[in-house]
Amino acid sequence: MMKYGIAIFPSKKIQDEANAYRMRYDTNYELIPPHITLKETFEADEQTLEELITELKHIANETQPFSININKVSTFAPVTNTIYFKVEPIQALIDLHDKMHQGKFTEDTEHSFVPHITIAQELVEDEYSDVFGSIKMKKIQFEDPVDRFQLLYQLDNGSWTVYESFVFGKEHL
Amino acid sequence: MMKYGIAIFPSKKIQDEANAYRMRYDTNYELIPPHITLKETFEADEQTLEELITELKHIANETQPFSININKVSTFAPVTNTIYFKVEPIQALIDLHDKMHQGKFTEDTEHSFVPHITIAQELVEDEYSDVFGSIKMKKIQFEDPVDRFQLLYQLDNGSWTVYESFVFGKEHL
Repeated sequence: MMKYGIAIFPSKKIQDEANAYRMRYDTNYELIPPHITLKETFEADEQTLEELITELKHIANETQPFSININKVSTFAPVTNTIYFKVEPIQALIDLHDKMHQGKFTEDTEHSFVPHITIAQELVEDEYSDVFGSIKMKKIQFEDPVDRFQLLYQLDNGSWTVYESFVFGKEHL
Repeated sequence: MMKYGIAIFPSKKIQDEANAYRMRYDTNYELIPPHITLKETFEADEQTLEELITELKHIANETQPFSININKVSTFAPVTNTIYFKVEPIQALIDLHDKMHQGKFTEDTEHSFVPHITIAQELVEDEYSDVFGSIKMKKIQFEDPVDRFQLLYQLDNGSWTVYESFVFGKEHL
């Protein structure tokens, strides 16, 4: 059984901006590039994975390219003091998320879907207040085209390697 | 213009074994998972990239899945003191490499192709001798199926993000 996850990597300009914060404030900085999680870590054996990949190709082919918008920095406090670029929760993103949490996929009823790009996490309380206070004053505004998502697996050191990309409308079935 | 590269990620078991060395001895440990480079860093604008992606799909569709074999640890010394898992240079790997260095692709006449997975680099001389002396005594043996390669781009922090995977015989054109 391997551990998998599904994510969207935003464009280089957003990743570079996110990394400027992550390198100082995100404990996962070295483990994965800046991303929007569509499906949290799940386990699958080889045969199940093959079935899920077929499903993911269907999902990709049903999806039209769309744009995401980022207009502010937000936080999950007081639940956790994670700070993130808030991604406007448009229907196209919600549809992608929902399709990966039904049918052959494992469900995840723990969280409601809040699309975001984490830029800081696991800060101690004082640092959190300083960092969030400073970042929330900055003007953060991005619009970014999305035409694909990525299936990743996790290595023993906690890092993530891309296994396969799924391009909207372009998958061979 | 963005910077791109093309690589094969070996299976998790090989990546985990490589990372056990890389975490201590490879200055690029945090920038990219363990990999076999098929094409070194090259620059491309958006339009050129689209053309190259079409070429890469053709190359993937012409390629049959194959197995790689790793039977020893080797080094590029005295040119550089990089230490690597030597990947047996079978024709299928050479063909992939060659097809990415002709036609629409930039050529690279600087190096002959030595397929490898780097596990240590930029060590000072004493450390290099110690590390290589110790690792070369170990029995390293892997056989690993390969059915895809990945196109990556480089962020400002030097890390690499996968843009697209190309699965042999499965690309939509």
